[in-house]
Amino acid sequence: MKWGIIGPGNIAREFVNDLQYVKDEKCEVGAVLGHTYAHAKEFAHQHAGFAIKDINDLLTQRPDAVYIATPHPLHYDQALFCLENKIPVLCEKPLAINGKQVSGLIEASRKHNTFLMEGLWTRFLPSFQFLFNAIQSKTIGEILHVHADMSFIAEKDKTNRFFNPELGGGSLLDVGVYTIYLSYLLLGNPDKIFACGKVNESHIDETCGVTLKYDDGKYAMLESSIITQTQNNAWIYGSKGTIRVKRPWTEHPERIDVHIINAPTQEHYPSWQGRGFQYEIEDVIKCLRNNKIESRIIPHNASLDVVKIMDDVRSQLGIVYPHDE
Amino acid sequence: MKWGIIGPGNIAREFVNDLQYVKDEKCEVGAVLGHTYAHAKEFAHQHAGFAIKDINDLLTQRPDAVYIATPHPLHYDQALFCLENKIPVLCEKPLAINGKQVSGLIEASRKHNTFLMEGLWTRFLPSFQFLFNAIQSKTIGEILHVHADMSFIAEKDKTNRFFNPELGGGSLLDVGVYTIYLSYLLLGNPDKIFACGKVNESHIDETCGVTLKYDDGKYAMLESSIITQTQNNAWIYGSKGTIRVKRPWTEHPERIDVHIINAPTQEHYPSWQGRGFQYEIEDVIKCLRNNKIESRIIPHNASLDVVKIMDDVRSQLGIVYPHDE
Repeated sequence: MKWGIIGPGNIAREFVNDLQYVKDEKCEVGAVLGHTYAHAKEFAHQHAGFAIKDINDLLTQRPDAVYIATPHPLHYDQALFCLENKIPVLCEKPLAINGKQVSGLIEASRKHNTFLMEGLWTRFLPSFQFLFNAIQSKTIGEILHVHADMSFIAEKDKTNRFFNPELGGGSLLDVGVYTIYLSYLLLGNPDKIFACGKVNESHIDETCGVTLKYDDGKYAMLESSIITQTQNNAWIYGSKGTIRVKRPWTEHPERIDVHIINAPTQEHYPSWQGRGFQYEIEDVIKCLRNNKIESRIIPHNASLDVVKIMDDVRSQLGIVYPHDE
Repeated sequence: MKWGIIGPGNIAREFVNDLQYVKDEKCEVGAVLGHTYAHAKEFAHQHAGFAIKDINDLLTQRPDAVYIATPHPLHYDQALFCLENKIPVLCEKPLAINGKQVSGLIEASRKHNTFLMEGLWTRFLPSFQFLFNAIQSKTIGEILHVHADMSFIAEKDKTNRFFNPELGGGSLLDVGVYTIYLSYLLLGNPDKIFACGKVNESHIDETCGVTLKYDDGKYAMLESSIITQTQNNAWIYGSKGTIRVKRPWTEHPERIDVHIINAPTQEHYPSWQGRGFQYEIEDVIKCLRNNKIESRIIPHNASLDVVKIMDDVRSQLGIVYPHDE
């Protein structure tokens, strides 16, 4: 199959590199649309694709699916264009910057009967499969609470998208989304949300702490930052023990420790080829073959629920983007 | 000086053992009041003190100060008795089980001009001194957020005080208090408090997650449990780096890591004799010599502020003790 690439930056490079590891389907790069034509040409040249100058060129080139890896605020318009033209969409997280936009995309996916999925690629990694299998088989009993954090130190530079509200800056949408997804996938939609953090003069969050509370007593404490380095660990505490996914838990963790009360800690070292985008891609292929418009693993409502949690957090903290209007 | 001991259990044993390390003052065990006379006699015999049968016997024996280490709900009556009779009081945390009781004790301390201090002994340990010195000298810049947890697995047994509301059971008052104190001493009184956790059918918290939010964007995420084992680490995140006090952070930490951004991590290994009660005791002695009724390090208002935070948490979660009436 031919993958159209919108936003040929670093993430797209890794995505395309992992196409070689996809099982049961030969994947190639098709049309490439960049911020500039020069960018697109360079990327296309390296990956045996072909650059296009305008999103309308997709209508003649018609890739089997597009992968959108542009800055967050561009996702909505680009994904909508593809859906309206029946081009299947895999779009980087967050699917769009707010609930209204995500609802619009889901509506378009249904109306045009075209596949749409948020690219929460980490969910498909063998490390996450291991984690979810362990949780499902109640290895640590019932989940009691979750703690996860993710952060990095972004250079404080006006041209840096992380500090730019025009480009959907801040920690929440960029890395906090991973922590919220983890909790959401493990515990479901929270009953109460409490947000704290440092919001700067541009109204973007430099640090963000989110507590998700569940009426049955479960909770998640989630932290993200672009100005300080947290542990980048995830802990899932259960009635029989604890699982720790060790730094960096979202990607290729150093290891996964399973600690059952009164037993020695078991260490697990999941490994795989490349960065690991192939697992997400294989799920997309399976969905397309079965004429599904959404994935069972990251369904539409998951994207909507998660962005609504982030909308609530943003509303509590006063995180505002120009695109919210 | 002679220390009266009320509640001659395991903690009192460690306290008394550390008397030998106190500088500049010869400390001895005086009157010992136990749950039973047999208990008191055994303890007194081991530590060269003398058992008393009734709290009224303190009026004739008159120790220079008492150390109260009974279950939480007994603190109020015992401390009040001592204060009203001008016997200085060092009382284990929590000073009492709710704000009303703590206010009453502070009032009695002022009225009778008698020393009263909550025994937050860990604050005085060399490990904490190191931490607070590093924070004060801005080693990690301005504090951004704090994460601390403390937990242990208590045996689920009806006779176990941790699960007994009559004895002030639950994780919050027993170990959560340490995490709240840490945040309070570093960041002050929070502007908002959010609580979550698992409260059982006896209305005590088996797990407790507390978020303290400050209007300037700082926050603390604090966890405690008596049914699962958390990390027992404390992290203080700052604008220039992070300090991690490693398991068990409240007592004798394995080590303290100071990580400044873009520099190698510095490891510190504070050590001291005994369990470390001597540092708290030395502060009490200093206060008594200077005719102070409160310590500058753990002043009355700190105890009141912290218990009020816990009252708020309890009210949010529905943690109720019979003694609240």
